[in-house]
Amino acid sequence: MNYKMVLKNLGIVLICEGIAMLPSLIVALLYGESSSWAFLGTILLLFIIGIPVSFIKPKYANLFIKDGFAIVALAWISVSFFGAFPFYFSGEIPSFVDSFFEASSGFTTTGASILQHIQGLPQGILFWRSFTHWVGGMGVLVLTMAILPSTGTGALKIMKAESPGPSPGKLVPRVKETAKILYGIYLIMTLLEIILLKVAGMPWYDAFVHTFGTVGTGGFSNMNLSVGAYNNIYIEIIITVFMFLAGSNFALYYQMFRGNLKAFFKDEEFRLYAFIVITATVLIGINIYGTIYNGIGQSIRYSAFQVVSITTTTGYATADFNLWPVFSKVILFFLMFVGGCAGSTGGSIKNIRILLLFKTAKRDLMRIIHPKAIYSVRIGGKAVNERVLSEILGFFFMYMMVLCGAILIVSIEGKDLVTTVTAVAATIGNIGPGLGMVGPTGNFSGFTNLSKMVLSFCMLVGRLEIYPILLLALPDFWKK
Amino acid sequence: MNYKMVLKNLGIVLICEGIAMLPSLIVALLYGESSSWAFLGTILLLFIIGIPVSFIKPKYANLFIKDGFAIVALAWISVSFFGAFPFYFSGEIPSFVDSFFEASSGFTTTGASILQHIQGLPQGILFWRSFTHWVGGMGVLVLTMAILPSTGTGALKIMKAESPGPSPGKLVPRVKETAKILYGIYLIMTLLEIILLKVAGMPWYDAFVHTFGTVGTGGFSNMNLSVGAYNNIYIEIIITVFMFLAGSNFALYYQMFRGNLKAFFKDEEFRLYAFIVITATVLIGINIYGTIYNGIGQSIRYSAFQVVSITTTTGYATADFNLWPVFSKVILFFLMFVGGCAGSTGGSIKNIRILLLFKTAKRDLMRIIHPKAIYSVRIGGKAVNERVLSEILGFFFMYMMVLCGAILIVSIEGKDLVTTVTAVAATIGNIGPGLGMVGPTGNFSGFTNLSKMVLSFCMLVGRLEIYPILLLALPDFWKK
Repeated sequence: MNYKMVLKNLGIVLICEGIAMLPSLIVALLYGESSSWAFLGTILLLFIIGIPVSFIKPKYANLFIKDGFAIVALAWISVSFFGAFPFYFSGEIPSFVDSFFEASSGFTTTGASILQHIQGLPQGILFWRSFTHWVGGMGVLVLTMAILPSTGTGALKIMKAESPGPSPGKLVPRVKETAKILYGIYLIMTLLEIILLKVAGMPWYDAFVHTFGTVGTGGFSNMNLSVGAYNNIYIEIIITVFMFLAGSNFALYYQMFRGNLKAFFKDEEFRLYAFIVITATVLIGINIYGTIYNGIGQSIRYSAFQVVSITTTTGYATADFNLWPVFSKVILFFLMFVGGCAGSTGGSIKNIRILLLFKTAKRDLMRIIHPKAIYSVRIGGKAVNERVLSEILGFFFMYMMVLCGAILIVSIEGKDLVTTVTAVAATIGNIGPGLGMVGPTGNFSGFTNLSKMVLSFCMLVGRLEIYPILLLALPDFWKK
Repeated sequence: MNYKMVLKNLGIVLICEGIAMLPSLIVALLYGESSSWAFLGTILLLFIIGIPVSFIKPKYANLFIKDGFAIVALAWISVSFFGAFPFYFSGEIPSFVDSFFEASSGFTTTGASILQHIQGLPQGILFWRSFTHWVGGMGVLVLTMAILPSTGTGALKIMKAESPGPSPGKLVPRVKETAKILYGIYLIMTLLEIILLKVAGMPWYDAFVHTFGTVGTGGFSNMNLSVGAYNNIYIEIIITVFMFLAGSNFALYYQMFRGNLKAFFKDEEFRLYAFIVITATVLIGINIYGTIYNGIGQSIRYSAFQVVSITTTTGYATADFNLWPVFSKVILFFLMFVGGCAGSTGGSIKNIRILLLFKTAKRDLMRIIHPKAIYSVRIGGKAVNERVLSEILGFFFMYMMVLCGAILIVSIEGKDLVTTVTAVAATIGNIGPGLGMVGPTGNFSGFTNLSKMVLSFCMLVGRLEIYPILLLALPDFWKK
């Protein structure tokens, strides 16, 4: 492990976090809130720690794959740690475990909250809370599109073929180049949504907050009732569309801007993603029509919003789906494991993996029928490497095992099964709300500190695609 | 597809089923029950259909892998179909869907029941119900130890290295040879348990019934309260030990009889199996001590029985674990996915697969740390073929997808989430009871016919290790 290089990079990340806190400080100052001091203190702390650390001179600049993973994992953990300080210093979230939960939930774009009354909080604090989604979304884009594909985990290599990612060996210059393009797309999307929400009738402040939550597929709102508070069909349509866009592969926008207008329709992952969203919307729409809502229009309106919100792992709500029939709840629960597309800001397992898992399953069955034939799994016409397939299958297993391990620990405190299981599924998948006590009208405040720590851990594990955080637990990882 | 050969084999299977029904007919006659007519009628029907079909002359005797799978899948389905007739003809189970459910549950050694009052049924019918477990256990031993390993599904090939299985190409003689050894062990185990249960205080009839349920890891009892009805510690210990033995790999007994006394301790799968059982017993014992039971001895007594019963996929109960704390319920639920060892009569995913899945996951992590090193997954000192690993990973995914698909359909009728999910998990894993309405004091009678059919399908899919039944759904499978 190139410790000095890892530390230096962490220092730079902390400086960036300090800078990222400035807009929230400005908001707090504009509203004349005492939370300004909490921001000022945290920013100073980040600079005091970050600047000297960033000046560390490593003996050699080479970064091995495991160094990359160490930086990614430790950066997300420390950013969440320091990001909790404004909540804690301001006294708005008196427990540090709660503050850390809220900050992790923000940066991992999960959107699960321990807050019971959101609307009582200062504007600066709520702005920071949502801004972490936006920053987290940026981080994820660069992580999954530029950094991870070059570090050689097969489970992620698949995206390389599709995305304008870097080639191994020339990491830094290509990361910068890719990041610029991605951030350009991300910024355009952000500005567009803010303006549209404002036009649809949202106050500027709310438009910013909900845009951060949408494009980052986070889900924090400044309203207790989430997006449902506005009861405005235009706002719902805008947010539904932008959640869907944020859950799509950003490489496709890049290709579209370069003139390849058919990119979306040609992309097998995007087609599956669209198919899942439409099918689930229709099934739930039929299921809740007549039982919960009377009009078919109303049923589709609520169904579409919830399906897109869960599939993209955003987590906004316009209805209390806890009260929906079991069939609808089962579909929403399964969608928690699908997630967005690779190269989006969405979390969970991702459509490309689901697609390849099914293709591999079919291949295995065909091999039994024709044992002598050679079958390869293809995506976009190209055969996928067997090792990549094996690693995606392994990813699925690891995802399930982290889920099971976390459920086991959270179950110690004795919450009901549905709450326990969906709380873990909603955090590891970076969704936000689950079912039962953690449903759209509930929150995570009732858990013990142990469970809150485990759930924060789940958010980080899920956000970083399992491997980076798990590696931290292996002694071999820390050897020089 | 060699249709004639497939049919011929099915004919033989039906004749065997007719013969297997004779002991139940004798029991019914001894008790002077009118259900004797139902047995007599079914036996005649089986002979009338089976004998002519078994005389079909195939043009060629070659069986391809897919023919083998067709025989296995269709045999299990038709045996369950005709096995339902005594229940239906006797009028004891008035619905044919219910009768089919009960027979599938028997032959697949699941032990899930639609009966609300077991003790009211004729002795002949209850004998047949339990005898199907014993026959199913025999079938599974030959299936997983002799037939499947030779058909080339990598997910199963792993057992070949460990078991005295046949080599491909010379299927029939080796199957017969292996089957003889397995049946010898199975018979010894059966006789031993019957005698021990009688000595411990069970009536002869009950000793037979519970032995069939134990050695086949089935779980049907002739008492409403299952094994708990006897409230006899000796009976509980005997059944716990024999459930554990039935869940172990029968190849190890064979090796032990040949003088390799260390076989059990050397076998990595057996070590994991024992470790899981002991760990779960201790954890649940601690969890229920003080909350449900006062004595530590009592806690371990109930914990051990339930853990062994669920892990081996038997499903007997001495306590209503539905009332246990959530932590215990979560452990039991997870155990439903572990199951017995390969080459046992137990169902579910099996310890060997769980072991290899974890080893593969660790290998994938080590590959990231040392990208240039070559890691192989080893079992018993030997490297496991990459294709086998990939197929085991694929098996895990398919298992989960069948689970999800079945949950989705069963959820349509709107039972609560815990009942819906555990009913499917308990049937696909061939366990029997789940949680909620299908807990140890409940039963499956409350489901709609659609759900009952889906759950019967799950039992068959799970019992035959996923592939054979899924293949039936592929058009390619039926081509000549």
